[in-house]
Amino acid sequence: MTKEKIKVGIMGFGVVGTGTYKVLTENSEMVKNQTGAEIVVEKVFVRDRHKRRAVEIPESLLTTNPEDIIDNPEIDIAVELMGGQEPAYSYMMRALDNGKHVVTANKELMAKKGRSILEKADSAGVGLGFEASVCGGIPIIRAFKRSLCTDKVERIMGIVNGTTNYILTKMAQECSSYEDALKEAQARGYAEADPTADVEGYDAAYKMAILASIGFHSKVDINMVRREGISKVGKRDIECGKELGWTIKLLGIAEETEGGLEVKVSPVMLPMEHPLASVNGVNNAVFVNSEAVGELMFYGPGAGQMATGNSVASDIMEIARQIASENKMLPNCSCFADKVFAEECSSSFYIRLNAMNKPGVLGRIAGVFGSFGVSLESVLQKKTEGESAEIVWITSKVKESSFNKALESIKSLDAVNEVCSIIRVEANGHC
Amino acid sequence: MTKEKIKVGIMGFGVVGTGTYKVLTENSEMVKNQTGAEIVVEKVFVRDRHKRRAVEIPESLLTTNPEDIIDNPEIDIAVELMGGQEPAYSYMMRALDNGKHVVTANKELMAKKGRSILEKADSAGVGLGFEASVCGGIPIIRAFKRSLCTDKVERIMGIVNGTTNYILTKMAQECSSYEDALKEAQARGYAEADPTADVEGYDAAYKMAILASIGFHSKVDINMVRREGISKVGKRDIECGKELGWTIKLLGIAEETEGGLEVKVSPVMLPMEHPLASVNGVNNAVFVNSEAVGELMFYGPGAGQMATGNSVASDIMEIARQIASENKMLPNCSCFADKVFAEECSSSFYIRLNAMNKPGVLGRIAGVFGSFGVSLESVLQKKTEGESAEIVWITSKVKESSFNKALESIKSLDAVNEVCSIIRVEANGHC
Repeated sequence: MTKEKIKVGIMGFGVVGTGTYKVLTENSEMVKNQTGAEIVVEKVFVRDRHKRRAVEIPESLLTTNPEDIIDNPEIDIAVELMGGQEPAYSYMMRALDNGKHVVTANKELMAKKGRSILEKADSAGVGLGFEASVCGGIPIIRAFKRSLCTDKVERIMGIVNGTTNYILTKMAQECSSYEDALKEAQARGYAEADPTADVEGYDAAYKMAILASIGFHSKVDINMVRREGISKVGKRDIECGKELGWTIKLLGIAEETEGGLEVKVSPVMLPMEHPLASVNGVNNAVFVNSEAVGELMFYGPGAGQMATGNSVASDIMEIARQIASENKMLPNCSCFADKVFAEECSSSFYIRLNAMNKPGVLGRIAGVFGSFGVSLESVLQKKTEGESAEIVWITSKVKESSFNKALESIKSLDAVNEVCSIIRVEANGHC
Repeated sequence: MTKEKIKVGIMGFGVVGTGTYKVLTENSEMVKNQTGAEIVVEKVFVRDRHKRRAVEIPESLLTTNPEDIIDNPEIDIAVELMGGQEPAYSYMMRALDNGKHVVTANKELMAKKGRSILEKADSAGVGLGFEASVCGGIPIIRAFKRSLCTDKVERIMGIVNGTTNYILTKMAQECSSYEDALKEAQARGYAEADPTADVEGYDAAYKMAILASIGFHSKVDINMVRREGISKVGKRDIECGKELGWTIKLLGIAEETEGGLEVKVSPVMLPMEHPLASVNGVNNAVFVNSEAVGELMFYGPGAGQMATGNSVASDIMEIARQIASENKMLPNCSCFADKVFAEECSSSFYIRLNAMNKPGVLGRIAGVFGSFGVSLESVLQKKTEGESAEIVWITSKVKESSFNKALESIKSLDAVNEVCSIIRVEANGHC
């Protein structure tokens, strides 16, 4: 007999949990019409039964015992929206052991333990959805898994963290300092009291590990992602970038290079004409280059109760449709390849430094770059103040090791007072 | 026993057919790894066996007899890439009658006969994919069917025709006339010798009928789509738009209004800041407003051998994965709702007219607008030449019937020499 009700247990009832509940209950008729069965939230695991919620929910659904979901034979789909590693991971694995389908929004867990989770799900023959783990409301995981699955992805460039994009947008549009923009982000609830996970690029690195794994069919370990945050980006760099026709974004980039797969997160100078350059505020966007399709961009809200809740709900519905048709679940893991990782990255760089305002200094610095094989695209003497001069250098695409050696040597020159900033440049990202 | 080979027959071997063949053969290993079975092109139906092809293909695969595909019990998936209504429709229906899964890129057929095709597919329990029928390489159908399926779509705005977007981009960027831009588009192969289907909005209307049907879960008959092309857009309107901070795009818009569902295709003045405004050349983009997610945009190539070929291939793979798992096909049709269609549209309008350069004329015209209840946002006297003056009017959002009555009355004024152009304005599309 075909199942008439598919029962869901939600673990964690914060922003995303309440959003998921709202989407599923408010749109239940529409969902039922497409699923062929009713999707019912049967239990919600919370830490505190009496906490005030952003959503109305019958008392009877709440439980403080996770076993009411993960060990409950009535539950078909366990939805993990608690975040963090533990106890989320243990709950998820136990739910899988018990033959439950799992949907999660947990980027940290998918980035760190994705392989073991997916393998367990596949060997149990259950579904595992994680659309909500990357870019909130943008259906980017499904785009890779169901549409770009027949294509060869060459490069993924993403603005995958809304907090840092908000800060950089504010710095660019209102000439704010990093500190002021961060304060504003905290006041609006976009940044945490301890903003490290966002501003130092950890959150973006998790998301890029997930996107790169799916896009390149190869498990990307979070340790393989080079990571750099935005806390060193100065107001002055944004100004200099503007004069060059560039804007600064915290970009995740995953690409196949001659040396292997490269995945990195860092501030990047991007030409104003690039489609990613006009993605502002807390929005996210992922720009993909692939062999057959060419250029695609997916743009939308990177977070939010309802937006992320919808991504969770769509994963639940995808699994529910298979259950309603009494189908086997399709394999979840698509990481069949074992790509080599690049030992080192190549990039163009923007370097802003402060040097003595004396004849011959420019030439001496240029000479050091040259002696380490770092060729230069341009040099701009920005302003001089008494005895010192601000100079901006743009290099060609160079190996990071050569660049770093040149930089060490430049720092040790008497004529160089300070190397103020170093930012990657992506001048040719968009053809 | 699980199927090891899933056999595909391709009908039509032009641009999209050869692209599909290339994607499937060049990426066969990757596809097999994800599908759990090999996808093999078994037969290709062509009109002329000896025609030179853009792709190398074994002679033995070619056939001039469509029955080698539609009646061939070996074939699992029949892929219709012939275009047009007949014989494509008959072949497709016979393939469905014979229990074959069908994948098509045929927007005209899906817009005109979508309901009968989907109903037959569902009653036969087979899969029916049509991702390639809208926006070439952009996975927009799947985004609606698998991700926005749990959300309430409020509005779809799309640049869904590359040819007209190329022409309008050229007019805007190079101050070309419509005629010159069209010639250039024809020279580059973007426009046909008879460009009617593109420039008069028929192609865009097919695509909007499909998108609106899926987005609003309600079969949108092609006759319900209001359609207007770009052939009357003047160089001068693009100039005037620029001064107002607007750009002109041929937009498909589908939205729920108080009066019901409205679907239309027409040139639209769009603010430069809108994400769709910077979609240039032959690119396509679809901008969606929905209740939970908010704003999403999908951007990419609207046509092309490999891009559209990939959309076809991804549909084939989706069906093949279910076959490989010995699953039932999930229902294809999601048009469970029966929405009421709006009897008339409301819009803001831009009107450029030529009137006598005399005191009192502005006031008289404004009076006529007012007497038909059409309120005005702004009036701009653009330039005067001797006895005549060019005047641009921007109305508030008004009912089209009131607007048309006002316009008739204005045309009959002695002081009005000519109404040069009328273009819709979408000033509030993006919040």
